Amino acid sequence: MNRPQVKPDGASAATHRHHGPLQYGPKRADGNTGILEKWLLKKLLELMGSPPLRFVLWDGQEIGLSAEPPAARIVIRDRGALLKLVANPDMQFGEMYSTGRIEVEPSLVALLNALYRSRMRLAPGSLRETLLNWLNRPRSNCLLRARENIHHHYNIGNDFYRLWLDRQMVYTCAYFPTPAATLEQAQVAKLEHVCRKLQLVPGDHVVEAGCGWGALALHMARHYGVRVRAYNIATEQIAYARERARQEGLEERVEFVEGDYREITGTCDAFVSVGMLEHVGVAHYQTLGGVIDRCLKPNGRGLIHSIGVNRPSLLNPWIERRIFPGANPPSLGEMMAIFEPANFSVLDVENLRLHYAKTLDHWLQRFEVAVPRVTEMFGESFVLAWRLYLAGSLAAFTAGELQLFQVVFARAGDNDIPWTREFLYKPGQGDGNL
Amino acid sequence: MNRPQVKPDGASAATHRHHGPLQYGPKRADGNTGILEKWLLKKLLELMGSPPLRFVLWDGQEIGLSAEPPAARIVIRDRGALLKLVANPDMQFGEMYSTGRIEVEPSLVALLNALYRSRMRLAPGSLRETLLNWLNRPRSNCLLRARENIHHHYNIGNDFYRLWLDRQMVYTCAYFPTPAATLEQAQVAKLEHVCRKLQLVPGDHVVEAGCGWGALALHMARHYGVRVRAYNIATEQIAYARERARQEGLEERVEFVEGDYREITGTCDAFVSVGMLEHVGVAHYQTLGGVIDRCLKPNGRGLIHSIGVNRPSLLNPWIERRIFPGANPPSLGEMMAIFEPANFSVLDVENLRLHYAKTLDHWLQRFEVAVPRVTEMFGESFVLAWRLYLAGSLAAFTAGELQLFQVVFARAGDNDIPWTREFLYKPGQGDGNL
Repeated sequence: MNRPQVKPDGASAATHRHHGPLQYGPKRADGNTGILEKWLLKKLLELMGSPPLRFVLWDGQEIGLSAEPPAARIVIRDRGALLKLVANPDMQFGEMYSTGRIEVEPSLVALLNALYRSRMRLAPGSLRETLLNWLNRPRSNCLLRARENIHHHYNIGNDFYRLWLDRQMVYTCAYFPTPAATLEQAQVAKLEHVCRKLQLVPGDHVVEAGCGWGALALHMARHYGVRVRAYNIATEQIAYARERARQEGLEERVEFVEGDYREITGTCDAFVSVGMLEHVGVAHYQTLGGVIDRCLKPNGRGLIHSIGVNRPSLLNPWIERRIFPGANPPSLGEMMAIFEPANFSVLDVENLRLHYAKTLDHWLQRFEVAVPRVTEMFGESFVLAWRLYLAGSLAAFTAGELQLFQVVFARAGDNDIPWTREFLYKPGQGDGNL
Repeated sequence: MNRPQVKPDGASAATHRHHGPLQYGPKRADGNTGILEKWLLKKLLELMGSPPLRFVLWDGQEIGLSAEPPAARIVIRDRGALLKLVANPDMQFGEMYSTGRIEVEPSLVALLNALYRSRMRLAPGSLRETLLNWLNRPRSNCLLRARENIHHHYNIGNDFYRLWLDRQMVYTCAYFPTPAATLEQAQVAKLEHVCRKLQLVPGDHVVEAGCGWGALALHMARHYGVRVRAYNIATEQIAYARERARQEGLEERVEFVEGDYREITGTCDAFVSVGMLEHVGVAHYQTLGGVIDRCLKPNGRGLIHSIGVNRPSLLNPWIERRIFPGANPPSLGEMMAIFEPANFSVLDVENLRLHYAKTLDHWLQRFEVAVPRVTEMFGESFVLAWRLYLAGSLAAFTAGELQLFQVVFARAGDNDIPWTREFLYKPGQGDGNL
């Protein structure tokens, strides 16, 4: 793994840089570790469900709950970092890691896998969890705030995402027909899987809510002969998508609208949203359902693709603050607040969790190759933060902490629905697109 | 349609018997219809969402909201029936129909389809709906009451169900690989579809909660080499299932236990429940989830198959009182109370609504053929009640008022789950069983 040089904001700088296994420096100005620090770190491990991890302090001491070889070591560079970590681990691990005051060996993925596995053994709803959740509650997603939150993540610049996404810039879970498929193949297969589930026919009008860089909208127009109105509030993405439509001569068939899902107008035969719901916020689901209810024709079909969770819970607060402000993946039960009030029938739910783990594995590998360029563009702290985000997401999908739900729905009285799901798995019109 | 002779409990008996199109008798002792009756019936039609129906009174007068030819006519035989119907239509339609004081032309299915279609246009949560729901709230399903409620429906006698179910006595939604499949083929295909979704391998231990007459348990043992412990609280069904296991020499591999789902013990590789959840009651879902959590091994799979609804609502109160005491089909959101507290991952949801409509169509046709025998066994009022129940269910699934959810789940951290769902649609080990 290509480790960038990081300039931490603490006093303990150069002596702790390393390549390969970490070298622990001599005893430091922070002084020796006292009984209190050791007790706090052991308590922290217990609160996390006793994962097989060890803390390594600035003076080289190791603290763990067992003598077993650990799955990973967390190296804490100074006493201030230790205290912050103990006070709010979910938030401060990311803060300290991305500023170089905490390092990890042998890899973030090994550490995070161990952490997620032990966290899942914890009982939900404990006082500690409740308090932390309240402290770290997501930001609101009113119309104005939604734009700010989305700009934070998606307007970093298309050049950054181009470095490690697939050619078509699809920034959502891919669908790997087999685990050995390439990322390029798997993203096209995902677009096809979505189009098949929507049963598109030429001439259909499609509304897409949250269209990213436009790959799905363009694919639908190109291969299924439909007309698409695709909404997004990320300015740079919309500009990129419009340029692609122009280059492909599809601007008559695909209209990219800079607008929020609440600003959708008109009617459609199919409604699709891939990777937007995570940013909507549970409190707004009924509004979203109302928008779909207003647009969808009597025989219309819909698909919502979203990161989710097994039971209502909050995203890791560091990711929510630093990477995805306002993000909040729902449980399947919470998602029903979109469909139930509007009396939609859920026809099909597919959980593609392991496909997102594989997608993230590809992204992380490509990101690591691009690290020198990303460091030039945004600096070392940005690289550490994004590595943590990608590795943390990979670990969360691998451990089953996060899910990926594709939900297909139709109006309650519509009997023009597929008889079985077998057609999804037959060679069909879209295969030439793979 | 073979119409049985019915002796209504009112005074207006013989003159109103008929075959084919209804003949309206002379003016009766109930006297002419007044303005009040007409006003009440028009209000009732409006409350139901203005379906294209007409009421026909004992004196031959027809009452409807439009001059259009109606989809069906509801013939009310006496003023008492009219008043009861207006006071509580959801409950009293079934009461009056099954005692011959209300008749329908041309068919119950035509009437009920029109009714469901117009009901679905009504806004949910109106004061009237709330009050009716409260009046007609389902009975509780404590352990003792659950047994009473189940005995009411399932212990009518195996001979009755044998008259119109398939050979294997499967009393749940079938799976028709194509709409033209026979009921026998479709019930075997359903058992296969469930076994495939559970990914059974020889030697697996399976727990089945609510096993009916044992068809699925026996199929799993016979074709997949698994051991099954199958629970049911309906005495006659258990006796029948044990006898079948003995005849097939499967009693070493399939144990039929007379017990409630709360009495399930031991561990299992697969947990399955087909058509029991409707009787469990939403208040007990977390308990059911706890039972599964206690039993299921770390890499275990589970499947729950249940009638459901698009949004929380109550079963028709007449069906709940007279046919299925305690029954309450959940919304998909309500079903999540089984899975979310125990941190199960929902992997797959399939809605087989149209398959249940087709299953009921087969059952209703077979039932009509068996009417002379059923009339001998239980009398005319029973025949009318069951016809209404089967036709009403057929209409509810056709109109999209009822759904059929098959939910596959696993433990959160289990990565030994199918990569895609393609295997469900490939020729496989079970095909010889069809």
